[in-house]
Amino acid sequence: MARGSARQGRPRVVVIGSGFGGLFATRALAKTRVDITLIDRTTQHLFQPLLYQVATGILSEGEIAPSTRNILKKQRNTRVQLGEVTGIDLAARTVTAVSSSGTTVTEYDELIVAAGSVTSYFGNDHFAPFAPGLKTIDDALELRGRIFGAFEMAEVETDPVERDAWMTFVVVGAGPTGVEMAGQIAELAHRSLRGNFDAIDPKDARIILIDAAPAPLGTFGHKLSAKAAKQIGDLGVELWLNTSIADVDSRGVVVRDKQGVETRIDAKVAMWSAGVGTTPLAKMLAEQIGQEVDRRGRVAVEPDLTLAGHPEVHVVGDMGTRDNLPGVAQVAIQGGRYSADQISRKLSGKAPNAPFKYKDKGSLATVARFRAVAEVGPIRTAGFIAWCLWLGVHLLYLVGFKNRVTTLFHWAVSFVGSTRSERAATLPVWPTDK
Amino acid sequence: MARGSARQGRPRVVVIGSGFGGLFATRALAKTRVDITLIDRTTQHLFQPLLYQVATGILSEGEIAPSTRNILKKQRNTRVQLGEVTGIDLAARTVTAVSSSGTTVTEYDELIVAAGSVTSYFGNDHFAPFAPGLKTIDDALELRGRIFGAFEMAEVETDPVERDAWMTFVVVGAGPTGVEMAGQIAELAHRSLRGNFDAIDPKDARIILIDAAPAPLGTFGHKLSAKAAKQIGDLGVELWLNTSIADVDSRGVVVRDKQGVETRIDAKVAMWSAGVGTTPLAKMLAEQIGQEVDRRGRVAVEPDLTLAGHPEVHVVGDMGTRDNLPGVAQVAIQGGRYSADQISRKLSGKAPNAPFKYKDKGSLATVARFRAVAEVGPIRTAGFIAWCLWLGVHLLYLVGFKNRVTTLFHWAVSFVGSTRSERAATLPVWPTDK
Repeated sequence: MARGSARQGRPRVVVIGSGFGGLFATRALAKTRVDITLIDRTTQHLFQPLLYQVATGILSEGEIAPSTRNILKKQRNTRVQLGEVTGIDLAARTVTAVSSSGTTVTEYDELIVAAGSVTSYFGNDHFAPFAPGLKTIDDALELRGRIFGAFEMAEVETDPVERDAWMTFVVVGAGPTGVEMAGQIAELAHRSLRGNFDAIDPKDARIILIDAAPAPLGTFGHKLSAKAAKQIGDLGVELWLNTSIADVDSRGVVVRDKQGVETRIDAKVAMWSAGVGTTPLAKMLAEQIGQEVDRRGRVAVEPDLTLAGHPEVHVVGDMGTRDNLPGVAQVAIQGGRYSADQISRKLSGKAPNAPFKYKDKGSLATVARFRAVAEVGPIRTAGFIAWCLWLGVHLLYLVGFKNRVTTLFHWAVSFVGSTRSERAATLPVWPTDK
Repeated sequence: MARGSARQGRPRVVVIGSGFGGLFATRALAKTRVDITLIDRTTQHLFQPLLYQVATGILSEGEIAPSTRNILKKQRNTRVQLGEVTGIDLAARTVTAVSSSGTTVTEYDELIVAAGSVTSYFGNDHFAPFAPGLKTIDDALELRGRIFGAFEMAEVETDPVERDAWMTFVVVGAGPTGVEMAGQIAELAHRSLRGNFDAIDPKDARIILIDAAPAPLGTFGHKLSAKAAKQIGDLGVELWLNTSIADVDSRGVVVRDKQGVETRIDAKVAMWSAGVGTTPLAKMLAEQIGQEVDRRGRVAVEPDLTLAGHPEVHVVGDMGTRDNLPGVAQVAIQGGRYSADQISRKLSGKAPNAPFKYKDKGSLATVARFRAVAEVGPIRTAGFIAWCLWLGVHLLYLVGFKNRVTTLFHWAVSFVGSTRSERAATLPVWPTDK
């Protein structure tokens, strides 16, 4: 237990989370004389922005989720530990983690909390089995099984009403993930599966993208949002805006419009990208400093990303609320690097940096192949150029040369060609109502 | 229902199974004026001989399991149907299949049954959760999660006895799959995971390969079997021969030697490649012709691979007993092509072929990178040349150019290099005793 305290009396840094925030913070501390313990409940650095491509059969899970251990194996000051963090004790300065092999308690001198976000159903957790989120490898493979499986079911289904239900796909939430997911299901139906079936025409699939807001990709501003809406429509995706979700069950989704009128959509596959919440860790931190989390479950942080009264605790990425920053990789990466630098400076007696300021490098969202919207500095563009930008940036941030090679190959196969290389799926679970 | 009877009055061929037998039979009928319905409970053509590479993180599931539908999309006389075949009625000439969308009954004029084999625990089905077989994508991903997960657990485990149990891997059955699996776990432990851990040295892992027979790869003959045993030993795998399995539970495996002495091996990961049985379909066929299945659950077939009294029913691959052929891909491929040709000849009024005769093209089994044993005609060789042969043959039979490209790349990464590209896994299930 608490092996973090063993080595040479160097300051002990515990990093919670191996996502963008945690991994980039850890790497930024590579040359600092500290002992780092990176704790995560999976053994992978998951490139979440591409998870939808695993779900739609373009990429394999290995391509977007390299082993954290392998990435960091040459970083001598770091150990990687599998475990679900269940406790942070700010007074005792310890982190408790559990795994199938038991419980560990690790002491820290500096703590970086970057546990990211989870799918939130806004209190309607009973929606979950019918409309999985897209946060983990398990989520992606389950959705892959359901998406490809639904076309198979439609092919053998003889009842036309049921067949239509198998051919209807509902994506809840028109943020980047929802837009990308809906776009890729549309490409699948209209292009990649062409000629694959006899009893059905995959083109007849309905893809419905639902959001309570009046526009998709709201954070991109009016102009790009409108362009994205047009691209989505061109793909044959139905965009139901100003629409909220009243219920989700085994038969489909019940939506409610602004006037309160409810409509049932019969759909066998639904996915949820509407809600983002945080892990219980944010609340745990907030309570210990006598605060409350915000509406999205985030904990308030100081201008230097530390916790009030705890300059040794750094909250990075989705978990912290600072200038209401968006939940994107860049915020986590920059926060992780900033906090790592603060720690280095503190340990070497240097003055701390100025408050954390997010440098917006731009926003990118891809709608489908050759179509994306991009906002880089003063430039706002939609279409092929935006898509090329998207391609380059994603390849750049994908960790590992080998993953870049096969990813580029699989993109060529899927975007220049039309097939999907990674259709093989685990057997899907079709949940039934209790 | 029975849509197979709809088209133009052409003879209806139903093929059960999209493995080697079913797929090659279907392809061989591409130019025959028949209507083919290929029914399988998955949507993939699974290249089973490489499944162990999915389990050990070398290949992705998509690389070895391309979509059957996509492979056959240009074959106009064929429809692919997802469904688990639950009934074959020889008198009514119908096949019943169920899926989540209901039950279908398909009529046939000619039937090819190629449903393959399943893992058999010889009546000890309670072993299954603790020692999964390796027959499906789900099996491979679960084993991947457990194998990589066990090293993670060992890294955080503080009790040395428990740690050793996490570091002990038991493979039951020293046929090709068992040997390949044990060899790859050894390569993982001794080479690929090097430098990945702090508290443990992956090299300390024990890999125990167990078989009741006195030699591994028994079908290869004494000389090659002895060479394989040496290669296995050189890799650091413990080979426990003349050893049977008394029990498997959450703590490990209890083995029994020839003298009846039982020994418990504490091991958190076990896999079962000892027993092969067939699906209930073989028994169903046997019963309808007043016969019994053999010890391995196979049904007797005539010299032309048909069922006695039913020249319209062809049994291909693992399900049928003919000259006691081994359960390898070549037997299924040749049987599938033979039966397809018989059907073509019958329909065009030609005389039937001579009885089916298996052309043994040789046997190959790889122990680890650069090591294999091969038996091709009079040539028996072990080592690098055998391994090159193995490489070529497996690439040749892998379906799809794209899969060959990425597979070759991943092999280069794993065999010339040392890493594994596909370590990302679903969350493993560590079963507990009831």
